[in-house]
Amino acid sequence: MSSDATLAIPRGFRASGVTAGLKASGSLDLAVLAADGPCASAGTFTTNRVCAAPVKWCRERLPADDIRAIVINSGNANAATGATGYANAGRTAARAAALLECRPEQVLVASTGVIGHQLPMDRIEAGIAQAVRELSCSADAFRIAAASILTTDTRPKIVSSTQTIAGRAVTLLGMAKGAAMIGPRMATMLGFLLTDAPVWANDLQEMLSEVVDRSFNCLSVEGHASTNDTVLVLSSTAATDPILRGEDLSAFATMLRSACEGLARMIADDGEGSTHFITVDVVGCETFEDARAIARAVADSPLVKTAIHGADPNWGRIVSAAGYAGVAFKEEELSLGINGVAVYQDGIPVPFDADGLSQSIKSRRDVFLKLGLKSGAEAVRFWTCDLTAEYIRLNADYTT
Amino acid sequence: MSSDATLAIPRGFRASGVTAGLKASGSLDLAVLAADGPCASAGTFTTNRVCAAPVKWCRERLPADDIRAIVINSGNANAATGATGYANAGRTAARAAALLECRPEQVLVASTGVIGHQLPMDRIEAGIAQAVRELSCSADAFRIAAASILTTDTRPKIVSSTQTIAGRAVTLLGMAKGAAMIGPRMATMLGFLLTDAPVWANDLQEMLSEVVDRSFNCLSVEGHASTNDTVLVLSSTAATDPILRGEDLSAFATMLRSACEGLARMIADDGEGSTHFITVDVVGCETFEDARAIARAVADSPLVKTAIHGADPNWGRIVSAAGYAGVAFKEEELSLGINGVAVYQDGIPVPFDADGLSQSIKSRRDVFLKLGLKSGAEAVRFWTCDLTAEYIRLNADYTT
Repeated sequence: MSSDATLAIPRGFRASGVTAGLKASGSLDLAVLAADGPCASAGTFTTNRVCAAPVKWCRERLPADDIRAIVINSGNANAATGATGYANAGRTAARAAALLECRPEQVLVASTGVIGHQLPMDRIEAGIAQAVRELSCSADAFRIAAASILTTDTRPKIVSSTQTIAGRAVTLLGMAKGAAMIGPRMATMLGFLLTDAPVWANDLQEMLSEVVDRSFNCLSVEGHASTNDTVLVLSSTAATDPILRGEDLSAFATMLRSACEGLARMIADDGEGSTHFITVDVVGCETFEDARAIARAVADSPLVKTAIHGADPNWGRIVSAAGYAGVAFKEEELSLGINGVAVYQDGIPVPFDADGLSQSIKSRRDVFLKLGLKSGAEAVRFWTCDLTAEYIRLNADYTT
Repeated sequence: MSSDATLAIPRGFRASGVTAGLKASGSLDLAVLAADGPCASAGTFTTNRVCAAPVKWCRERLPADDIRAIVINSGNANAATGATGYANAGRTAARAAALLECRPEQVLVASTGVIGHQLPMDRIEAGIAQAVRELSCSADAFRIAAASILTTDTRPKIVSSTQTIAGRAVTLLGMAKGAAMIGPRMATMLGFLLTDAPVWANDLQEMLSEVVDRSFNCLSVEGHASTNDTVLVLSSTAATDPILRGEDLSAFATMLRSACEGLARMIADDGEGSTHFITVDVVGCETFEDARAIARAVADSPLVKTAIHGADPNWGRIVSAAGYAGVAFKEEELSLGINGVAVYQDGIPVPFDADGLSQSIKSRRDVFLKLGLKSGAEAVRFWTCDLTAEYIRLNADYTT
C-alpha cells in the first residue's frame, strides 16, 4: 500500500480543498470529492443518539447507486444544531449539486469540528464554488482534500493501492481524519474511500459494515464516541462495468479491509498529545464482541494509558481493566504479555525484569499488549494511544 | 453530620492504625476495626472479574451475625495474586483472630494499593499485633484508622452522626478511601460503616445494597472499576438489643444513606489531581439505570473533564457523551444547564454568555451539570471530578 510518495487515483474521481474561513487558524477547511458519473455508494455512521445533521442527511440516502459527490467541512461539526442544522446540510448539498449539475440528493455531506454552532452558510457556499472550480484528478488535489478535513490532527491520513482483480486494475484510495473524540461504536470520525472497482451498492454496504467493524470500530483515543462518525465508500464504475462477484469480490473486500485498517492505525497513532501507539491483542475469547469489549476496556482506561505514558509496567491496571469489561471469564484463565514479556500467566504473577520492560516501553513509540483467555478461538486487534499532559492541555480550551 | 471537630463513636467498637511497612513512604498502612462482641454485618463488593483475595474472603462470609473485626491494609491490593493471595488473606484473618480470641471466619479483611504483588506476611502479622495492642475507643483512634487505609488520597474521609431512633441514641460512623481507580459498578474502593443500631444482618444487607447503589455507585474518578471495591457495615448491638423495624429501620436507612453519600462525595472531591468537583444531575428518565448510565457517560468522558478543567463551556462534549450512553432518547427532548445557565434546550442551542459562564466555572471548585430528558420521572445525582495534567503525572509512574 502506497502512502505519500506515489498515490494511485481511482478512475472517475476528482478532488479539491480550499479555505472557506470556518477555522480561526485560516487553515484548509472544505473539501469536495466528485465523481464524473453516478457512483455505487455505502456508509456507516455513529450510533450516538445526538447525531450530526450531515449524518442524518447521508443515512437517509445510503446505500445508493447514483451518488455524485461528497462535500466535507472541518472547523464546525453541524451537530446539536436542530432543524436549522439539518436545513444547512441540505443547502450545502444543493449548492454543490447546482454546480455539478445533479440533484441535491446525489450529494453527500460530512462535517467535523466544534459541536453546537450553526454553519456560516455564506462562507460554506462561497467555499463550495471555489472548490468545484478547482476540482482535479491529480494526486496533489487528493492530498489537499485530505488536509482539508483535519481538525487537531497533526498530519493527513491517506492510503491508496492498486491490484488486479478479474483481469483489470482496481484502485482504492482512502482518507480519514481524527485525533480526539475517538471511541467509535459503529464507524469513526470521517473516513472516505473511493474506488473504481465495479461493485453493487448493496455489496459495498455489506462489505463496508463488516470491514468497519474490524477496523475503525477497533480504535479508540479517549473513548468519547463522536456525533459525526461517518465512513463513506464510493465506486465510480458500478453503473457501467461488469460487477465483481465471488472470489473477485472477496479480493476487493480484502483491499477495503486493508485500507480501513491502515487508516484506523493512523488515527490512533495521531491521537492527541500521544507519545505511544498501542496495539491491544485479545485472543482466546468465545466471541469477537467479547474480545473487543475487553480490548476496549483496556484501551479506554486512563490508568492503563498513563502507565504506558510513564513507561511503567504496572500490569495490574491492565488485567483489572479486562476484569470490568462486562465479559464473563475465569481469573485463572487470564494471561498478559507486554512487548512480548509474560507478566501474568493463568491468574498468577510471573516474575519479570521490570526495569528492562520499562526501558523497552520507553525506547520506542509502539507498545504491544496481548491478553489471552481460554474461552474460545475468537480474537481482536485493537489500536489506541497513551494519555498525556499534552492531551489535557489541548482539550482544556479547544473552543475558546 | 459531624466531620472532624466532634466525632461520635458507636458503642462497642475500638480502632487503631499503625505503620506496618507496606508503603515505601513509611506512612500509616494497617488499620484494625474491632468490636467487643459479635456484630451483624453486611457488605457489597466489586463486580470486576479480576477480584482481590480479600474480596473473595469477605464475600464468602456475608451477611453474618458473628463478625468481630476488620483488618485493612493499604499499599498492597492483594489482587491478581492467585491461590497464594487468598491464603494470605486467610492468614491475615487468622492472626487477628488469635489475638482477639475469635475464629478466623469472624474477621473480615480488605486491601488497597498496588495490584499483583504478594503481601509481605511478616510485616502484616507484626503490624496486626501492634494494632491490636493499640485498639482504643477514642475519636483519635478512629481518625488514625481512617488515615491508615489511604493510598493517594490527600485527606482522610470520615463521617459520623447520632440520632434518636426508637427512643435510643443511635450512632453511625463511616470511613472510606479512594482517589483513583474509581468507577465502581457495585460498590466502591473501601468503605467501612460502624453502628450501634440494633439491626439484623439481613436487614443491613438489604439496606446497604440499596444505599450503595445510590451513593458509591453514583461516583467516578476516571471510570476504572477496581479489583478491591468493598463496603462493609457492622452493627455492634444486633445480638443483644431489640431489633429496629418499620419506621425505625427506615430512619436508620436514611442515616446510612446520608453517611454513604457524604463519603462518596468526599472521594470524588479528592479525585487525583482534580481542580473541580462536579455534580451531574440527570432528570426525566424512564429508569434510574438510564439516568445513571447517562450521568456516568458524561462523568467518565475525558473530553468533558478536560473542558471543565479549562473552564471551557464546551457543552457539545456533554450532550454528545449523553448520546453514547446506550440509552434511547430523542435529541429533541434533551436539555442541558451548566451552573444554572441553560445552554441547550430541547435539542437546540441557547445563546448564552460564554465568558460569564467560563468565569463562573473558573472561580469556584464546584460545578453543576443538569441534563434533562422527557422520558419519565426518574433521576440521579452523580459525582465526579475534572481531569488534569497532575492526574497524568501522578499516574504515569505510580508503581515505580
